[in-house]
Amino acid sequence: DEIKAIAREIVRKEVEKHAADGLARVDYALASGGGMVVRHSEPYIPGSGRSWFLATGRNRVHSDAQKMLQPSFGEPGHCFPLAGSKGFVEIKLRTVIVPEAVTLEHVTKSVAYDRASAPRDCRISGWLQKRDIDPSSQEEKMFLLTEFTYDLDKSNAQTFNVDPTNSGAINFVRLDFTSNHGSLTHTCIYRLRVHGYEPDTIAALAMQS
Amino acid sequence: DEIKAIAREIVRKEVEKHAADGLARVDYALASGGGMVVRHSEPYIPGSGRSWFLATGRNRVHSDAQKMLQPSFGEPGHCFPLAGSKGFVEIKLRTVIVPEAVTLEHVTKSVAYDRASAPRDCRISGWLQKRDIDPSSQEEKMFLLTEFTYDLDKSNAQTFNVDPTNSGAINFVRLDFTSNHGSLTHTCIYRLRVHGYEPDTIAALAMQS
Amino acid sequence: DEIKAIAREIVRKEVEKHAADGLARVDYALASGGGMVVRHSEPYIPGSGRSWFLATGRNRVHSDAQKMLQPSFGEPGHCFPLAGSKGFVEIKLRTVIVPEAVTLEHVTKSVAYDRASAPRDCRISGWLQKRDIDPSSQEEKMFLLTEFTYDLDKSNAQTFNVDPTNSGAINFVRLDFTSNHGSLTHTCIYRLRVHGYEPDTIAALAMQS
Ligand SMILES: [K+]
Ligand SMILES: [K+]
Ligand SMILES: [K+]
Repeated sequence: DEIKAIAREIVRKEVEKHAADGLARVDYALASGGGMVVRHSEPYIPGSGRSWFLATGRNRVHSDAQKMLQPSFGEPGHCFPLAGSKGFVEIKLRTVIVPEAVTLEHVTKSVAYDRASAPRDCRISGWLQKRDIDPSSQEEKMFLLTEFTYDLDKSNAQTFNVDPTNSGAINFVRLDFTSNHGSLTHTCIYRLRVHGYEPDTIAALAMQS
Repeated sequence: DEIKAIAREIVRKEVEKHAADGLARVDYALASGGGMVVRHSEPYIPGSGRSWFLATGRNRVHSDAQKMLQPSFGEPGHCFPLAGSKGFVEIKLRTVIVPEAVTLEHVTKSVAYDRASAPRDCRISGWLQKRDIDPSSQEEKMFLLTEFTYDLDKSNAQTFNVDPTNSGAINFVRLDFTSNHGSLTHTCIYRLRVHGYEPDTIAALAMQS
Repeated sequence: DEIKAIAREIVRKEVEKHAADGLARVDYALASGGGMVVRHSEPYIPGSGRSWFLATGRNRVHSDAQKMLQPSFGEPGHCFPLAGSKGFVEIKLRTVIVPEAVTLEHVTKSVAYDRASAPRDCRISGWLQKRDIDPSSQEEKMFLLTEFTYDLDKSNAQTFNVDPTNSGAINFVRLDFTSNHGSLTHTCIYRLRVHGYEPDTIAALAMQS
């Protein structure tokens, strides 16, 4: 009976974590919470010979881009494919936060058709932008949050901590990937999450104590 | 090995319950099962200074209202926000039932940006309406099903039993909330479920035995 | 502590499997992976007295048909209803595969309003079609993959192996159901999955070793 109680407690915690968006951690990039992809490199349009940007006009955001700020439901296909093995995406967060970690997710191995399109070497930068002006003019303010390698042998959602010494408040992040796991044509981003805390909350806590 | 078998059995049951819409209980308010929000108090439209009802005409139902009869996928944002800390929603059920319980769900603490918009003191009423005539003329037939307080420290989906002494057959329910957990501007309803049984089923069972 | 570690390991594996589309198995019929319903028998339109095909023109595919190649989220309603207790659907797979098994899923008992509409006796056939020409002219090439009975007392997602002696490469499957669990009016298909491997993968593996 004691064993059963212990087992039940462990199960409840794991199921609860799974039910809480898989990680039980607040995501400030989540589309349903107000996150938005604002810029990205050339998208991958299978069967198309020419540039989507040239065909539609520069600085547009592809309608599939927001998929990387939405849950994937444990299935292949819920991703945003970018052309080639190098590229980037820029994301406006829900609000200003002090970043603590980022999570990059790809499709789970057991249901994937192919994982060659998974990103490999990645770099996340962030910056604080006061108004909604042209993001491209803001990049000089960018600072590095973390660099990492997405590992196909680990869990499909991999979390990387932000170096606490270089983290000021931000409301934008940029993911640059410089390699993938073998695809010559494209790299798929299933989901990027940004974790942290709102500076106001901390200020409020400090005032309470 | 015996311990492993016991643990596996406990795990399977919990995961099965989670996979069965989280509660493994029939929901007669579910949108994909035929439930429908038919009336509600003023919706909350951020940034808008004036009444949505005045702008769009009375007795309309906001397109986001049906979100409260749909799953929330363990994420913030899948809710219907109503203006202020008091308000109501009226729901047509899939079919006539004898109500046994209701479940009010808010976003899980671990992924929430803020839970001040959660409803607090609530009252659920029900009534039986023979035809699809104007619901507002039907309210004299309404009777109380249950009153409860949504508690932020408990599980995010909280089930409250209907007092069996006052439960006749119904096909409509109304949720009135009279307070929330601190938001001055709005109250979010993530999901309301209505549990019970169809009287025909019981009659059929009685005839069999 | 050892018991806790064992229990935790069992839990993680079960939750991981649940998070991986419930079965942790690749599905070549999945809509988000490129699967598509291309033909079906008369759909069930409640309240309609006449044939949907006669009203809309033959050889059309109903917009709800793709629901049977999508997840069901543990809820009733995410299905494609076909008229009567006999019928069929034909599905184009994502790519050419050697089929190993199929999974037929209905809504879980604990959240179902009624399961009389579940299919009962089923037959799955497959064929290889080189180009996207009229599927109806291809049926002479069809061969049987498996015959089975969907059992309401077992798990809601039931997997049936393909007889390995008769399985060549295919890119289309057909489900014929010849009975259901009691409904006189319609039969609901919640989801059909097709498992197997891509012949190229195997050839590539053989070349490596
Ligand atoms: K996604
Ligand atoms: K919801
Ligand atoms: K489905």
